[in-house]
Amino acid sequence: MEQTYLKNTPLQEALLAYLPVFDSQTTPAVEQVPVTQAAGRITAEAIYARLNVPHYLACAMDGIAVLASDTFGASDLDPVALADGQYVMVDTGDPLPDGCNAVVMVEELIRRDDHVLLSTPATPWQHIRQIGEDFSAGDMLLPSYSSLTPGALGMLVAGGVLTVPVLRRPTVTLIPTGDEIVAPESVLLPGQIAEFNSTLFGSLLTSWGAVVETTAIIPDRLDALQHAVQVAADRSDLVLVLAGSSAGRDDYTTQVISGLGDVFYHGLAIRPGKPAILGRIRSVPVIGLPGYPVSGLVVLEEIVAPLLRRMFRLDIPVRPTVTAHLSRRLLSSLKYQEYIRVRLSLVNGRYAAIPLERGAGLVSSFLKADGWLVVPQDCEGYEAGDTVEIQLLRPLGAIAGTLSVIGSHDPLLDECMDLLAREMDHTIQLKSSHAGSFGGLLALRRGEAHLAGIHLLDEASGDYNRAAVVKNFQPGEIILVEGVYRQQGLMVAAGNPLQLSGLADLARPGIRYVNRQKGAGTRLLLDYQLRQLGLAPDQIDGYTREELTHTAVAAQIKGGSADAGLGILAAARIFGLAFIPVAEERYDFLVLASAYETPAVQRFLSILRSAAFRDRLERLGGYRIDQIGRVLIHA
Amino acid sequence: MEQTYLKNTPLQEALLAYLPVFDSQTTPAVEQVPVTQAAGRITAEAIYARLNVPHYLACAMDGIAVLASDTFGASDLDPVALADGQYVMVDTGDPLPDGCNAVVMVEELIRRDDHVLLSTPATPWQHIRQIGEDFSAGDMLLPSYSSLTPGALGMLVAGGVLTVPVLRRPTVTLIPTGDEIVAPESVLLPGQIAEFNSTLFGSLLTSWGAVVETTAIIPDRLDALQHAVQVAADRSDLVLVLAGSSAGRDDYTTQVISGLGDVFYHGLAIRPGKPAILGRIRSVPVIGLPGYPVSGLVVLEEIVAPLLRRMFRLDIPVRPTVTAHLSRRLLSSLKYQEYIRVRLSLVNGRYAAIPLERGAGLVSSFLKADGWLVVPQDCEGYEAGDTVEIQLLRPLGAIAGTLSVIGSHDPLLDECMDLLAREMDHTIQLKSSHAGSFGGLLALRRGEAHLAGIHLLDEASGDYNRAAVVKNFQPGEIILVEGVYRQQGLMVAAGNPLQLSGLADLARPGIRYVNRQKGAGTRLLLDYQLRQLGLAPDQIDGYTREELTHTAVAAQIKGGSADAGLGILAAARIFGLAFIPVAEERYDFLVLASAYETPAVQRFLSILRSAAFRDRLERLGGYRIDQIGRVLIHA
Repeated sequence: MEQTYLKNTPLQEALLAYLPVFDSQTTPAVEQVPVTQAAGRITAEAIYARLNVPHYLACAMDGIAVLASDTFGASDLDPVALADGQYVMVDTGDPLPDGCNAVVMVEELIRRDDHVLLSTPATPWQHIRQIGEDFSAGDMLLPSYSSLTPGALGMLVAGGVLTVPVLRRPTVTLIPTGDEIVAPESVLLPGQIAEFNSTLFGSLLTSWGAVVETTAIIPDRLDALQHAVQVAADRSDLVLVLAGSSAGRDDYTTQVISGLGDVFYHGLAIRPGKPAILGRIRSVPVIGLPGYPVSGLVVLEEIVAPLLRRMFRLDIPVRPTVTAHLSRRLLSSLKYQEYIRVRLSLVNGRYAAIPLERGAGLVSSFLKADGWLVVPQDCEGYEAGDTVEIQLLRPLGAIAGTLSVIGSHDPLLDECMDLLAREMDHTIQLKSSHAGSFGGLLALRRGEAHLAGIHLLDEASGDYNRAAVVKNFQPGEIILVEGVYRQQGLMVAAGNPLQLSGLADLARPGIRYVNRQKGAGTRLLLDYQLRQLGLAPDQIDGYTREELTHTAVAAQIKGGSADAGLGILAAARIFGLAFIPVAEERYDFLVLASAYETPAVQRFLSILRSAAFRDRLERLGGYRIDQIGRVLIHA
Repeated sequence: MEQTYLKNTPLQEALLAYLPVFDSQTTPAVEQVPVTQAAGRITAEAIYARLNVPHYLACAMDGIAVLASDTFGASDLDPVALADGQYVMVDTGDPLPDGCNAVVMVEELIRRDDHVLLSTPATPWQHIRQIGEDFSAGDMLLPSYSSLTPGALGMLVAGGVLTVPVLRRPTVTLIPTGDEIVAPESVLLPGQIAEFNSTLFGSLLTSWGAVVETTAIIPDRLDALQHAVQVAADRSDLVLVLAGSSAGRDDYTTQVISGLGDVFYHGLAIRPGKPAILGRIRSVPVIGLPGYPVSGLVVLEEIVAPLLRRMFRLDIPVRPTVTAHLSRRLLSSLKYQEYIRVRLSLVNGRYAAIPLERGAGLVSSFLKADGWLVVPQDCEGYEAGDTVEIQLLRPLGAIAGTLSVIGSHDPLLDECMDLLAREMDHTIQLKSSHAGSFGGLLALRRGEAHLAGIHLLDEASGDYNRAAVVKNFQPGEIILVEGVYRQQGLMVAAGNPLQLSGLADLARPGIRYVNRQKGAGTRLLLDYQLRQLGLAPDQIDGYTREELTHTAVAAQIKGGSADAGLGILAAARIFGLAFIPVAEERYDFLVLASAYETPAVQRFLSILRSAAFRDRLERLGGYRIDQIGRVLIHA
């Protein structure tokens, strides 16, 4: 429980000082590689053509080759006749026959038995590809440090360059560290974490053009780490130490690097990514990456990528950006440059940027996020509606074709996502975030999403969703579509060892409940049911313990840290829990009226009505369908 | 010389009919692959998490774990004391100790010898990562047909998925055909063409995720092609026949495919790419690609890419687009959808799109082009200044950082390009097109480029460039920078076998000259010198034969199709030609005033003044430097 006091160096300052440290390196080694094996490699020097293209005077049309002066004076009234020896039949690509200096197209010929007639004179050199028309021997085809694209490779072969000098790929050694880190194949004990960072970072580095090696996991022992770093620095061009997340580990890595070389920076003014360590052992950069995957990724993108570009000329793409409107207020610390993951939704012709949770440990955020919003250190944040630049993590075309769903969680949305992905014309994707039913209502009002799954009980009528929609939207804004009827119930340990029979038992002493977040339809259902039973929230142990999804609630019960939670049968089944039915409710789909006719929404609705979707519901269990897809409110 | 009558089917019509032909295929085969080897592969089905992440209740902070109720009532005035057994010291990531339900941050503790003091009560479950907070076992991590990015791979490992079902990569067989096509290693005879299309197309297909095999070159014999296609269709998922460019070849391929299966289309309303053949042998698509590389590429992008996306779910990126202003009028045929290669220049804050030559055989165009302008079939073209959408072939960021040079050709520009590429901070690229000195003037006036190399003799003063600049630009528009003095002379065959001594000899009977294009400074120089000598253009055989660059002129002389041409010493040296000096001229740089202070232009000017550049000029030969980089006109 040592506290670490890190510096807080601004990123640009660190980059400006650290990157040039390695400029005096000998230039990267060069390999001669056959062009056919050089895709994606980087030229070590300027490459010049060895051949002219074309390398001979070539006929550019099908027709006849002639001496132009033989055709001078030809006209419609007075065509010129060329006898057999005066022309040669040629195809496109044929070499120009000796004694000829023009080609006449076949379409312009009038053929007679022993001669041809021309009614237009040929101009010298017409329809002939001159030697070197494309490029000439000696022309520079590619400058130094060019990335060998398919087009470049084709041009090299055409220019007679069959072997090309390229830069050797840099070797990067990843060193995962930490007593709590175990191989992913292991059965995980509490406190142990599967080592997945090397897969994430390694495959990214490989895609950038590096050759990556990952060492065994190094335990938290100074001598072990020292040895591993020493060996890695001896045999690689770059060493990345994947520090763990527990306190004190960074100092450890710092100590090792400064013992073997120099540490230039420890602690950057970026979040996530602050505990980064920038060092050197002899001429090899040695960088400590924070253990949280998102933190490590920021350091990889912001420090390692520019270093690899500069030292080894790797052609690492710079992320394209898009202008978006921030959907919510966003505060940021003046202590850091912050990297906020956002989802993007194209709603009513403009992109809404929705900030995601900031937790640096959230692995799932790599797939939820469509981009990064980088908040400069001197910026305190943005107001809702502000225009911001987003660095894209997915192609903009894919984002534009995405049906954006925010609202109540139900696994059927994931099944819809899969069914959409499996369509032949897979141009539409579905992406859903869990924000509860009310969260979904708000998201639609803010223009953050096209569609929301909701199950909001109207206590007065006993009906679902209609009242909430009428209350929260203006006429014409929204369309409510009937979804599914689903069973809500108490999820309890397999075999129901505590012999719970219903919600009334939640007040029994010793029963640990786990709840859903405020705004979740399931929580409203609980509140309604408790009132019916005359129970108050504070009679329930765990009423304030909140989870975001049915499966997360089920996971707590399965894990033994809670005894009961309200949720759907599908979630209980996934975890092998017992299920005590409480109520059947209707889970509907609320759609922005402006998005209703879009291909994405229409495709979604047709999936809902499909047999394949019914099969999926069957497999999940606990659902009933009445008139799915019917418009309930078109206000 | 058979004439082929092709159909002219609109592209969309062909795609709509041809792609679904293969929908009834059995779905592509599935392989189980370790996640660590699955980068870039496509999931065969939806992937669900096997583990909760986190899989245990984890402390989210360094501090102490407590039972929240032990801390209730704590305040600044009345802190709660916790004795040794009432708390446990924890680090971030530690499992929550038994009997605890909250974590208090180390910063909030007041430590005493045998107890700790808290001045704020802990709320239950604070600073605890709940089981499944990131995702829960059973949650869908990826839908079917997802591309396995680094982030996805990391998430799978974290979720306990170590082996993943992926689609087998499709195998594509390329069959190069044609009697005139020879292996690139061969010494090329006139009429022979090196087989480079398989390198170009093969590396593109590989980058899309296909496994590519290329057969030997198949001669123009029906039985040979039939056998090759048959074998390929038996063992691959897709067969591409690379037809040659000579007439009749396509029919040949059509005959073979229809003999073994069906031909759906032969001839599409696209240019280039018209002679494409879309066929099938049993369930295998067999496609004939036109022999010209640009034509083949259009068919690959427009037909093969959508087919591979649909049949094998390959994640082939769709090209991003940018809005640009067309710099010149562009006419297009109503018979075709046309694909026009363009260069893009970011000038005065907007992108100018400059149409390049349309020749489908130009290999170099793959590197010259920044994008495609697709002109729909029903469009007759665009006017200069029209807003057009350009499909990008290079990242927009790279294009924005490019110094755009259009004007007179000199190899020193290529050497500058290389020197810029070799700079440590290689953010600026140089791209130059050859349009002659006057072409360069016009390009700057149209806002197509930042800089032009010019050598325009003012016959009145004998000086270079100043007069032309004053005449063609308004004050303040342009800056003229002194370049190099260079030797122009007659290039003739090695050893000067015709014993030419100067321009006067060009009028000698039998001497074949090769000229530069109109607007080229070298042509103006010739005209001036001929007038001095009292010679008329029509006394020079070959005065109307035009080439675009010094090296292209040299290539004709080397190839023996011309005896003499005016050009610079560097070009003569590359081809080992003799050189008869005619005049020394000044080759200057004309810069848009609005671009003069940009980093790109300033970097270029500093390269000009560098010792490295002097070395390059020395190596090229024929240059003299006086006050290079000096501003001659800042009007």
